[in-house]
Amino acid sequence: MSVRVNAERLSARLRDLARIGRTSQGGTTRLSYTAEHAMAVRTVAEWMREAGAEVGLDAWGNLIGVIPGSGESAAPLAAGSHLDTVPDGGMFDGALGVVGALEAACALREARRRLRHPLVLVGFAEEEGTSFGLGCLGALGALGRAPSPETLRDPLGRTIAERLREFCRDLPRREFPTSPACFLELHIEQGPVLAERRIPLGTVDVIVGIARVAVSFLGEANHAGTTPMASRRDALWGAADLVGGVRGLALRTGGRAVATVGRCVVSPGATNVVPGRVDVTVELRSPSLPLLAELRSAVDETARASAERYGLAVELGPWREEPPVALCASIRDRIAAAAAEAGWPVLTMPSWAGHDAKILARAVPTGMIFVPSAGGISHSPRESTSLEDASRGTQVLCRTLELLDQEIP
Amino acid sequence: MSVRVNAERLSARLRDLARIGRTSQGGTTRLSYTAEHAMAVRTVAEWMREAGAEVGLDAWGNLIGVIPGSGESAAPLAAGSHLDTVPDGGMFDGALGVVGALEAACALREARRRLRHPLVLVGFAEEEGTSFGLGCLGALGALGRAPSPETLRDPLGRTIAERLREFCRDLPRREFPTSPACFLELHIEQGPVLAERRIPLGTVDVIVGIARVAVSFLGEANHAGTTPMASRRDALWGAADLVGGVRGLALRTGGRAVATVGRCVVSPGATNVVPGRVDVTVELRSPSLPLLAELRSAVDETARASAERYGLAVELGPWREEPPVALCASIRDRIAAAAAEAGWPVLTMPSWAGHDAKILARAVPTGMIFVPSAGGISHSPRESTSLEDASRGTQVLCRTLELLDQEIP
Repeated sequence: MSVRVNAERLSARLRDLARIGRTSQGGTTRLSYTAEHAMAVRTVAEWMREAGAEVGLDAWGNLIGVIPGSGESAAPLAAGSHLDTVPDGGMFDGALGVVGALEAACALREARRRLRHPLVLVGFAEEEGTSFGLGCLGALGALGRAPSPETLRDPLGRTIAERLREFCRDLPRREFPTSPACFLELHIEQGPVLAERRIPLGTVDVIVGIARVAVSFLGEANHAGTTPMASRRDALWGAADLVGGVRGLALRTGGRAVATVGRCVVSPGATNVVPGRVDVTVELRSPSLPLLAELRSAVDETARASAERYGLAVELGPWREEPPVALCASIRDRIAAAAAEAGWPVLTMPSWAGHDAKILARAVPTGMIFVPSAGGISHSPRESTSLEDASRGTQVLCRTLELLDQEIP
Repeated sequence: MSVRVNAERLSARLRDLARIGRTSQGGTTRLSYTAEHAMAVRTVAEWMREAGAEVGLDAWGNLIGVIPGSGESAAPLAAGSHLDTVPDGGMFDGALGVVGALEAACALREARRRLRHPLVLVGFAEEEGTSFGLGCLGALGALGRAPSPETLRDPLGRTIAERLREFCRDLPRREFPTSPACFLELHIEQGPVLAERRIPLGTVDVIVGIARVAVSFLGEANHAGTTPMASRRDALWGAADLVGGVRGLALRTGGRAVATVGRCVVSPGATNVVPGRVDVTVELRSPSLPLLAELRSAVDETARASAERYGLAVELGPWREEPPVALCASIRDRIAAAAAEAGWPVLTMPSWAGHDAKILARAVPTGMIFVPSAGGISHSPRESTSLEDASRGTQVLCRTLELLDQEIP
């Protein structure tokens, strides 16, 4: 008989966390290093202690709880996600992975299943990057890959060290383990795939790569009346052309990539002035590195062609790229096995969003479990996952930990 | 032998005015009701007095100088333009019409050609609408068609009456005449037509109508990674489509209309978020009222089709339209006659920009004389008209005043 997670407790804790930073729109604003984040850390620290963990905080504000193993193996298993939210975010993004890992620990404890390995529960800080402008900062810090907490500054000029000086001073210092045996993150999909296909669980094979470039179209700002159409060098003509072109490039990949123009700033931006300059950013995402490279070239070409078509100059900034990261295949197999034991279908799928797991996977065998997001909505008060789906994911997380505990030497 | 204007004096006065509000970019910022505007008013008032005028200011800050006629006719002839500039504007827009009318008066006085009619010289305020957000406010006020100067407020909440309390208090109150016999405005073309065709003079038959509409595309802001291309409702796709569509509509008129999308605001405007909303403004200009009506419908249709193509909602604000205004045909004939006497070619052409003359023409027989703008550039420090062109326009203005003085009873 397998260990059963407690769906009611999971749900109650998710609701408790969602209240910390509750907004008038019904969402939650829990930005890193704020009073709301501190209250969430203290709340989860208390739950971790109830689960038998020794808790503490590292130099990046990551909450770390360690439950000792039976001593047969020293390398810890790690599981968790992040405690910060975007402004007016939902109640599952990040929180589910933290509370789910905690619930797995509680269920194991109540079933008196002591793991051979220590279990590290983690609530990362600043995954959303809203306070210091750098996503997954907590996870990067935990792995020793972040800028120094003494040098990075927020928009008000404060360092992380300064912001942490008043943050949860009652918690002792505790470090994320240097070489965990694995890392597991339970997360909502944040996309519509599982919900639309009515599959309750996903296991991630690859976290997509992201490539971004700033493109500026330079024409000539001019009078919107006296400048004949044929004499215009309207920068928005070029940008509009690129928007359509980029859409076409992504569509032609047949689902193997997405492309977005999310930022588009028109100057001078007056009703009666022909736009002289338009700055856009093109973002590409794909699980395939060669496809990203191909699309990068195609975007460059499209931008140049759009500019030429309308007599514009074009400036293409340097591409910034995070390559795709493959997760651990054998952990993926354990996740699939755990789901199969319970008779639940599971879809192997890419993650189109970045996650703490993407950082961890560079150094630690890592797996991710997805549960459905209703309508694919996230970063919104309307983010929604059923209690049944959330607890199924938690159950699989718990069972996967057990399987890994047995199999990892 | 006709009266000759003094090109050197004209040029010196334009340069004197351009220094009042000189910017580091080499342009001039002389916004209405500021200290710079006041200094320009005092400077031009002094020049007007030298030309034999009695000067004063009306309730909208318009500078008015009246040179008595011989008394044979009471209805005054009026001529001038505006003294305010856009931020970092050029040295000719507005200033040329004020200084040119003044130069005509000086030249007539020096040649001892006393007009039968009184001559009203005017330097309108707030033509650019940069202080109170309403273009041609001074001219509207002069005709009794502006909102009360006690009620209209600038962005800091001050009324015109309040802003004028400290403005040129040494000048007496003086009103624009209620029924002038005519109004003449000399202005740079602000477009490239005369310069490209190497024609030194234009006479305006119609000032184009302008129609504007705000269009909002409403899609769904969503994660730029997790939202598959086929599930997106990207508001920028619709807006980009409209930009191209609007361009095509104007091009197909073969020069009879222009269309501009000058404002385009993308929300939320983040690199990694699919745009949920885009707000654009479409502006149409044409000398033809039926064509404007036809284009309005076509823009509405295009916007609806763009929205439908990408699964978006669209909100079309009400169209705001100023109809085209025809100028006085017999004044146009006098302008052409004056140019012909000097042997200068003159092009009858629409004005694609609004002017004080557009307001005046609703109540007063009105004519406009255009001189070339190098490269069609205006509202820029690079605005440029040769001294030869500027003085040719002034010469024609002077001669047209003489002709009208003889012919108007």
